[in-house]
Amino acid sequence: MKSLEIPPGVAPAIILVEPQLAENIGMTARAMANFGLTELRLVNPKNGWPKKGVREAASGATHVLDAATVHASVPEAIADLHHVLATTARERGQMKRVYGPEEAMEAVCARAGQRVGVLFGRERVGLTNDEVSYADAIVTFPVSPDFPSLNLAQGVLLTAYAWRRASGRARLPFSGEMLSPPATREALLSLFGSLEAALDGAGFYPPEKREIIARNMRDMLHRMAMTEQDVRTVRGALKALTRGRGEG
Amino acid sequence: MKSLEIPPGVAPAIILVEPQLAENIGMTARAMANFGLTELRLVNPKNGWPKKGVREAASGATHVLDAATVHASVPEAIADLHHVLATTARERGQMKRVYGPEEAMEAVCARAGQRVGVLFGRERVGLTNDEVSYADAIVTFPVSPDFPSLNLAQGVLLTAYAWRRASGRARLPFSGEMLSPPATREALLSLFGSLEAALDGAGFYPPEKREIIARNMRDMLHRMAMTEQDVRTVRGALKALTRGRGEG
Repeated sequence: MKSLEIPPGVAPAIILVEPQLAENIGMTARAMANFGLTELRLVNPKNGWPKKGVREAASGATHVLDAATVHASVPEAIADLHHVLATTARERGQMKRVYGPEEAMEAVCARAGQRVGVLFGRERVGLTNDEVSYADAIVTFPVSPDFPSLNLAQGVLLTAYAWRRASGRARLPFSGEMLSPPATREALLSLFGSLEAALDGAGFYPPEKREIIARNMRDMLHRMAMTEQDVRTVRGALKALTRGRGEG
Repeated sequence: MKSLEIPPGVAPAIILVEPQLAENIGMTARAMANFGLTELRLVNPKNGWPKKGVREAASGATHVLDAATVHASVPEAIADLHHVLATTARERGQMKRVYGPEEAMEAVCARAGQRVGVLFGRERVGLTNDEVSYADAIVTFPVSPDFPSLNLAQGVLLTAYAWRRASGRARLPFSGEMLSPPATREALLSLFGSLEAALDGAGFYPPEKREIIARNMRDMLHRMAMTEQDVRTVRGALKALTRGRGEG
């Protein structure tokens, strides 16, 4: 079996309680895989398991679906875990701690070596109050009060993303590296000189504003953060443009 | 018209370039609405607009769909904006700054009063290198290298969520307020006393470990962070359990 980026038991388990739509389960598997989570648990999926359409919606994250476990109840699904969070959209009249995703996942990462699970409820009605009472704490999302209804798989995505960030694994796949080092000041000032000479020769500057305009253009070139290659490119363009003027 | 939580022009515009699936456009509208974004722009949607199935997938976020504008090209779609970000999964051989979602949205929020847009590419092939070159900078997501392919609407969700957080609007809809104040130390120590007397009377403690066990139980009760009501509840439970023992 292909070795996983993140070993089993490190990332939280995602537990869907009585999920109904194949679409949501598949998209959940995909969202998990996108951020390195692999442990999916399903409690009493509606209308059976496996479901038609799940594999298509998972869009390649079938390894998560194939490893998913099915349980008859929430207590059974969470039995081996050490810490459980319940996602809810509304306050539940229980005096539980309530976290946003970042805070919740930072607390999870502080529990190194412990197995953690996050419960997500039914599409229409969420988790029951009893199910919430089996969890240590609540996670809720900072949605707009105008439109608070978050799709199940999108709630999983935000949780998985917050976990990856809290665990220090959220590296960008690439960075904006300069392909050439910054130009030396000698090269840059020399370019200023060539540019200003060409513009002088072309009668560009109104005489009373020559200094101000020249300095503004130097500032524009500074803002470009020009590399050695950039300076060569611009010098070449300037030369091409001024060919035949007796310049360059 | 219902007044929006966030006035027009404050949040970034989301620009989908040649999106293909109604599902993705609808889920994009929903993801935007969840975090208070309202401005959706579509460039040359595949197979026409509006699309069958979009409204269902938007799950109530039809106000975003109804206000969406359609454009023939990326330059047309971004013409009025002051700053544009392009989402890409892969490095594009251009020397552009590359941001993760948080960093990108913090920079966006620093541009108060400027109109910003974020470009999302085609489901299969993303944005062309030309389209990327029209943007000021790139945004990419810190996905798992094992499974980097992020669904279009899920990329929009992460962007919208990161914006809401960067803009200081990411408040949780409810918090875990204690419904009763913490118990005074008098009430708590009195409970310790009653509990320990009951356990003494029941012969619970092995004599040589009495102090250690009693102190561990006090620690457990401290960890509960008991409120006044909690102390009353536990005192009542203790009384009920010891009824008939001549205790309580």
